[in-house]
Amino acid sequence: MSFSSTEQWLTRKILGMAGNPPFQLIVGQAAGKAGANDGLRRTAIVVSDRRMLAELALDPEIAFGDGYSDGRIEVRGDLVVFLEQLMQAMQGAGRTGWYARLRSWWLDRVNDNTTRGSRQNIHRHYDLNVDFYKLWLDERMVYTCAYFPTISATLEDAQVAKMDHVCRKVQLQPGEKVVEAGCGWGALALHMAKHYGVTVRAFNISHEQIAYARERARREGLGDRVEFIEDDYRNISGRPDVFVSVGMLEHVGLRHYEEFGRVIHRTVGDWGRGLLHFIGRNYPHPFSPWMRKRIFPGAYAPALSEVATIFEPWNYSVLDVENLRMHYAKTLEHWLARFESSVDRVTQMFGPEFVRAWRLYLAGSLASFRSGGLQLFQIAFAGANCRQMPWTRAHLYEDLQLALKEEKWMHATP
Amino acid sequence: MSFSSTEQWLTRKILGMAGNPPFQLIVGQAAGKAGANDGLRRTAIVVSDRRMLAELALDPEIAFGDGYSDGRIEVRGDLVVFLEQLMQAMQGAGRTGWYARLRSWWLDRVNDNTTRGSRQNIHRHYDLNVDFYKLWLDERMVYTCAYFPTISATLEDAQVAKMDHVCRKVQLQPGEKVVEAGCGWGALALHMAKHYGVTVRAFNISHEQIAYARERARREGLGDRVEFIEDDYRNISGRPDVFVSVGMLEHVGLRHYEEFGRVIHRTVGDWGRGLLHFIGRNYPHPFSPWMRKRIFPGAYAPALSEVATIFEPWNYSVLDVENLRMHYAKTLEHWLARFESSVDRVTQMFGPEFVRAWRLYLAGSLASFRSGGLQLFQIAFAGANCRQMPWTRAHLYEDLQLALKEEKWMHATP
Repeated sequence: MSFSSTEQWLTRKILGMAGNPPFQLIVGQAAGKAGANDGLRRTAIVVSDRRMLAELALDPEIAFGDGYSDGRIEVRGDLVVFLEQLMQAMQGAGRTGWYARLRSWWLDRVNDNTTRGSRQNIHRHYDLNVDFYKLWLDERMVYTCAYFPTISATLEDAQVAKMDHVCRKVQLQPGEKVVEAGCGWGALALHMAKHYGVTVRAFNISHEQIAYARERARREGLGDRVEFIEDDYRNISGRPDVFVSVGMLEHVGLRHYEEFGRVIHRTVGDWGRGLLHFIGRNYPHPFSPWMRKRIFPGAYAPALSEVATIFEPWNYSVLDVENLRMHYAKTLEHWLARFESSVDRVTQMFGPEFVRAWRLYLAGSLASFRSGGLQLFQIAFAGANCRQMPWTRAHLYEDLQLALKEEKWMHATP
Repeated sequence: MSFSSTEQWLTRKILGMAGNPPFQLIVGQAAGKAGANDGLRRTAIVVSDRRMLAELALDPEIAFGDGYSDGRIEVRGDLVVFLEQLMQAMQGAGRTGWYARLRSWWLDRVNDNTTRGSRQNIHRHYDLNVDFYKLWLDERMVYTCAYFPTISATLEDAQVAKMDHVCRKVQLQPGEKVVEAGCGWGALALHMAKHYGVTVRAFNISHEQIAYARERARREGLGDRVEFIEDDYRNISGRPDVFVSVGMLEHVGLRHYEEFGRVIHRTVGDWGRGLLHFIGRNYPHPFSPWMRKRIFPGAYAPALSEVATIFEPWNYSVLDVENLRMHYAKTLEHWLARFESSVDRVTQMFGPEFVRAWRLYLAGSLASFRSGGLQLFQIAFAGANCRQMPWTRAHLYEDLQLALKEEKWMHATP
């Protein structure tokens, strides 16, 4: 067997495992020639050498992510479109090999979100220099799916609209107490206090984020109404009216859902209400192993059947589930565009390998939301004795309707 | 042991099993005296004799239902309030005795919703004389939860609003094809064809309802656009764009959900979308045994974790879940009031025992929705390749907002 026929065999095997996506896999030496033949616009993966090819065959997802990051793999054509095609093809493909499955299982074990494990997992992502996130997030530093009332809204407006959407869904009343589990850099907690007249206790185990949020509360004169607490959700205390968690459930981990439900019930009890906002799935399956290894250790996006285990033991009523999948795709389009226009700065900060890894993470997430591999759920819920429940959901859309009507008038006026 | 002390022991046992609700249980002879002592307004159950008491101790739910129906049990005070208090107390109580559990299990077996079993189960409820249902349903004969845009809307308007709410949630487009599983007397199918320009194939195994619906389609000149088919949902064929089922899932039965999901996917596939509207629960537990025995054989109200088994095997995305529990309570208030004002007519038709059984069913359902024992879910879903998905849910509320705004203007004008 010649080198070339080994390569051919590996190439066929790799493309087969990926469900035979509509693009070429080219090994280094042949890249120039193939590129010339097929035209530059044809999507292709160019792999540096045979060793990279073998790694891809053994553990495709992690090898692809790592190879792309360190430059041994190049993608010709639009990265997001390429990833969408790949995901579409993989949906029809069978299971990955034993080595990849074993590695996936092992990742799950070493990254378990115990109190200690969570602290490590969160530190690796959220304690990165805040100046880095400032380069590509909106001005309020909201690192979760935005809500675009219209498709052309700006990212800044869409993040404010998301925060209002959440506040309205739980019908915040002036004077009420809110607990937030996982508060990022504090945007939502501050927004609730400032615009809805509530007091907030916001929990987070990212040291950098809490420090930043505290400084912000001080600067905005909200220090007496928003308390930022550097602690695990398992240690949440007090008896607030409302429990809110936006973009944290992904870090709780499936085997801690029962515990998470117990914390919610201990906190808001049968009289309270709340909202969970999280990345989910149409059916249960684990996060991409590369994402779990390099970007979000310990992360898991649940299906609704799995999330039910948080609410059902406590007789909580699910009032409203909204799927904002396409809003996360839109959010990621904004983030990716801003990230790309700051690439020089990010390269200075963390080097080119980091840039490529984060490009893959953002592009991969965008492709996942577009193709439906990931969903975004907001679930509003209430305890058995809760008296603060909306009659309909019309109040969520009041401003928008007025705005639309005004727009109609404007168009009608000559 | 005297008779009296046996009675006291049984009385304590029965009230204990019910979680010690805040009312008296009085046996026949003592009723007059106790009534006089406590004032007529105090809520109480008056039981005819010691035998009824023993039946209550052995199988409380069925004995209460049957005893109330045949007049051996009277309830003093407001029946709905009494049932709400009872349900509240029972939530805290332990499990019922072995005999009641065995009976519940047995009911589940004999009433299984196989193709043949479903036909019998549906016949017993829905094939009752249509003139009976006309006495207390709205003019369009919609026998499912209405949607009240405002709390004071009429039942007629609220049923139309519900049908529009459903049509908007699935974003019906003129020319599209719809399949409806379980169509009652045909109101929704006719509404969709008439107001949304779609063609509908509507399935039902109630012979009386199908006959009535066909006559109605003919009368309204919609016979060429709505086909009413007397057949089981398992035999649904064709490739429509939209799958809708309002108030039928309760009759499918938990062990047929996988099959139901398969039927949906065989019908609308990965490109279609749909909506299920059904009575549900906060957590899995069976329907009241009396309801299953006397009113809705084979019925089961699922928790969301159970409903997930319909969607998840087929990679369906849940787009929207709305809980309309209080709208069903409001619907039942209307039905119960209309039923009570037709009691003479119903007595002529079916006799007093039927009247009492149906009063208990309507009042019990009302109490269940008020106290949260029952929920009402509408779930909109879409296949992996569906292209007809709303950007936001604002379009569901357009008219209402305009109406509210007009109302504001009216108030502002002197």
